[in-house]
Amino acid sequence: MELQELLKAARGLIPADTVFRNARIFNPFICDWEEGSLAVKDGLVLGIGNYSGKTEYDLSGSYIIPGLIDAHVHIESSLLTPREYSRLVVRHGTTTVVADPHEIANVAGTKGMDFMLDQREGTIIDIQYLLPTCVPATPEDVGGAILSAEDLKPYVARCGIRGLGEMMNVPGVLTADPSVLKKLQLCSVRDGHAPLLAGDDLNAYILAGLQSDHECTGLDEAEEKLRRGMYIFIREGSIEQNISDLIGLVTPERVSRCCFASDDCQADTLVEKGHIDQCIRRAVGYGLKPELALHMATLSAAERFGLSDRGALTPGRRADLVVIDDPRNFRVKKVFVLGKEITDPVPVPTPPFFPAFRCRPPSVKDIQIEKFGKTRVIGLVPRQIHTRSLRYYVIEQGIPDFKRDILKVVVCSRYHDTPCSIGLVHGFRLKRGAVASSISHDAHNIIAVGASDREIILAIEEVVRSRGAMVAVAGNAKTVLPLDCGGLMSTMPYEEVTSRLHDLRDTTEKMGSISYPFMYLSFLALTVIPALRITDRGLFDSEEFRDVPLFLE
Amino acid sequence: MELQELLKAARGLIPADTVFRNARIFNPFICDWEEGSLAVKDGLVLGIGNYSGKTEYDLSGSYIIPGLIDAHVHIESSLLTPREYSRLVVRHGTTTVVADPHEIANVAGTKGMDFMLDQREGTIIDIQYLLPTCVPATPEDVGGAILSAEDLKPYVARCGIRGLGEMMNVPGVLTADPSVLKKLQLCSVRDGHAPLLAGDDLNAYILAGLQSDHECTGLDEAEEKLRRGMYIFIREGSIEQNISDLIGLVTPERVSRCCFASDDCQADTLVEKGHIDQCIRRAVGYGLKPELALHMATLSAAERFGLSDRGALTPGRRADLVVIDDPRNFRVKKVFVLGKEITDPVPVPTPPFFPAFRCRPPSVKDIQIEKFGKTRVIGLVPRQIHTRSLRYYVIEQGIPDFKRDILKVVVCSRYHDTPCSIGLVHGFRLKRGAVASSISHDAHNIIAVGASDREIILAIEEVVRSRGAMVAVAGNAKTVLPLDCGGLMSTMPYEEVTSRLHDLRDTTEKMGSISYPFMYLSFLALTVIPALRITDRGLFDSEEFRDVPLFLE
Repeated sequence: MELQELLKAARGLIPADTVFRNARIFNPFICDWEEGSLAVKDGLVLGIGNYSGKTEYDLSGSYIIPGLIDAHVHIESSLLTPREYSRLVVRHGTTTVVADPHEIANVAGTKGMDFMLDQREGTIIDIQYLLPTCVPATPEDVGGAILSAEDLKPYVARCGIRGLGEMMNVPGVLTADPSVLKKLQLCSVRDGHAPLLAGDDLNAYILAGLQSDHECTGLDEAEEKLRRGMYIFIREGSIEQNISDLIGLVTPERVSRCCFASDDCQADTLVEKGHIDQCIRRAVGYGLKPELALHMATLSAAERFGLSDRGALTPGRRADLVVIDDPRNFRVKKVFVLGKEITDPVPVPTPPFFPAFRCRPPSVKDIQIEKFGKTRVIGLVPRQIHTRSLRYYVIEQGIPDFKRDILKVVVCSRYHDTPCSIGLVHGFRLKRGAVASSISHDAHNIIAVGASDREIILAIEEVVRSRGAMVAVAGNAKTVLPLDCGGLMSTMPYEEVTSRLHDLRDTTEKMGSISYPFMYLSFLALTVIPALRITDRGLFDSEEFRDVPLFLE
Repeated sequence: MELQELLKAARGLIPADTVFRNARIFNPFICDWEEGSLAVKDGLVLGIGNYSGKTEYDLSGSYIIPGLIDAHVHIESSLLTPREYSRLVVRHGTTTVVADPHEIANVAGTKGMDFMLDQREGTIIDIQYLLPTCVPATPEDVGGAILSAEDLKPYVARCGIRGLGEMMNVPGVLTADPSVLKKLQLCSVRDGHAPLLAGDDLNAYILAGLQSDHECTGLDEAEEKLRRGMYIFIREGSIEQNISDLIGLVTPERVSRCCFASDDCQADTLVEKGHIDQCIRRAVGYGLKPELALHMATLSAAERFGLSDRGALTPGRRADLVVIDDPRNFRVKKVFVLGKEITDPVPVPTPPFFPAFRCRPPSVKDIQIEKFGKTRVIGLVPRQIHTRSLRYYVIEQGIPDFKRDILKVVVCSRYHDTPCSIGLVHGFRLKRGAVASSISHDAHNIIAVGASDREIILAIEEVVRSRGAMVAVAGNAKTVLPLDCGGLMSTMPYEEVTSRLHDLRDTTEKMGSISYPFMYLSFLALTVIPALRITDRGLFDSEEFRDVPLFLE
């Protein structure tokens, strides 16, 4: 009997599989370091004690910490399949992620969720999924699927499902929309998403059962939400970077309510900057005690999701552990998952996944702006996903306006043969060329921005030809990253994806673009985030929560 | 729809039922105080905000804290029925207890559990039960029932059941006894009980799934258990008082892992000293920051048991709250349960509960000690339930030995017509008279100690006549507290029980006894606690875990 053998080993009556000697071991229960030999058997921690093992590691001078946990991520945003994502983040010490397959579900419904769940098999790290609650993001958004409480119900008890993903439909919650409340009743773990929500409305949102938030951008906002009982996931993604503003929230009394989350992080960011390890480095850089940062990245996240089998290296828990040089530098030296060292895993091939794709590229005539006058212009905000709603007077033939940095943005439905929509955006700084992508949260229609109509159309045509891609067009030259899993993820190894992203970066830099143009582009359609967005129907004022025209009356 | 109305009220669109104004409100999420108006509707907290209510309280100068939670208690030890217990402890600000009906289950099996569960109905506070795992306490103990995993299984999903109660069978866990492991698989919440367990064996005990301990008596012991991942319930009962020794364990980083528990607390202690309020006063008296003590008594306990609906006064949680004068004095001014003020509730009558009772009082001949020589003597330890194993040379006719304070202790089976057992005990200090009781953990056989054989027999006879009681005999005078619920609890109101306990105290004091002789007496048979105990079979060495003779060879 397996438990019998484990108990014998824990009591020191039979040898352990592995013993780690002479390291300092982080213990989140005391937020401090322990010395001793850590023993592991059958993938589980036996404990710290006077153990001997079949394999022994001498880790003098090193530190051992529990495997890192990302409390909220959309794996699709990495552009990698879950298996490739895992192969990449495990190098950074991540051994568990709590993922919301919200993007692929918006594109392909339960078939998309099944694709993601199937990928748990044979994946290095443990992926715990939350059920996407907002497919589509709002009732008005037309995506590839509509998921009701009834559609989600069969998934509740499935292995690898931990609860409900971020409930972005704040108005639906506050007005007690029955279809929303039905979803909230499905699970006891329920993640929230309520940027800038405060006061009585925040009380109501929490009363309805939402328990966490990863959208705080200001310290006062995070403070209020934490006081009212929410877990605060401090986010550091490719463009959403909140650690510098929020880390002051974390004190010893509060650390168990604070976690790290990457939310949306592209493969190249993960390769170059890291994952939760990077969050720890940054938090410590901003003055947080390393032990508190480590607690956030391990036990806090495990307990928030009721993952009582991990988050600490105490008896009976998963032997997911990371060997680092020093808690301040935090360079990962070795990673063990369920007691097994992870050394250069090879990519596991994933077949492509092509859900329905019915986009028709626009003609030059389709994307003309024929009026002139005072317009609404989407204003990018550096390092944030919210936008500003700007006003500019536009003259005939005045777009592109390089002086005022106003470019045309075009959205084509991915699902229906309907006319495209046209808007204006400030902040991309393109001087020539165009970019287009099949990633645009959350409906994932085709979105493009560019310095000329011709290049915009070329870029969209290339996305359609690939049935999903990220494309940069400069003149006639095209740089393409095909996204052959639902137009969101690539089946290529992460090294190849990163290389293509570098090519795209080089191309767009030469076009004058800001960093990460595709990331900013991908959020322009997200109607649940303030202030002005663009969907396949046209401009959307997310503060008034309604479609608005390009031209002011 | 109820939730719809609650959401409206939380948003301030319709009035709340009740609003508490001008108090300082304790927020365990920040371990600090907030100002503002706290609104309540339908028994639930709406939040702190700018609310108005149908009823409003002006609490200027007062403090509001969430209702207090006892993390581990045996209600039977109060000598009160659950309803009367609730009526008493609610006066002290307790609104939730996590109770293990271990005593009544040992006496009456599932019928005893049903009696306790039925009492949840119409009870003021919320009683969450844990399933008793050790009935009998050890396979050798003969009590009134044997509860296997199969017997417990039907209770797992019942309303009011929170998990598994203290697993006292440490050897059974360590040796992977299949009947013990089967019980551990029943629930995901599992309380431990492992006095002085340390090192590798402690690792094994935790690996098997035990998550908490309330038996720590030393700071090093508590520190080791906390480090290995256990929740530490710091106990303050009628005689088991660990706060002074353990409170140094609690720091801001660790407070979420530390709770208060009363374990065994008689009605008179509850009336005179208090309950969890007393724990807070004592902890603060020993130097703990009041806010940390309050966290332990509220959110820590709620989270340990997954009671996400209480432990803080944040939106959607139970409006269980206590108005106090000052967090240091901690005098309770008002108590609200589910938003309703509790004012002088009247006793709810409970019919008596008489399970099987087959005790035969011994004759003078039955309790003779006919040998002399070197004997094992149970040594009481002041304010602790463990004992010492002493050695004394006893001469013919040398008992009682008032000079060396060695008295005779007698145990008669409550369940079987078998011969009684005889032992010797040091520490009661009786100079005359005898005490007997139908409470003796955990089999609850009849136990008596006295200064003369005649009075011992008289006392036992009175217990049998009452089918359960606490009795003090001095000469021919008898003082009796009848225990008409399984020989453990009284159906009388707590005021009457307390008055009888005072009579017993006065009588035993006149007999020269130490304080709380019945409490010490009741633990003498508990074979899971070190070092020397007495059962209906005779002396038991709980360190060697075997029966031992009175006389040394």
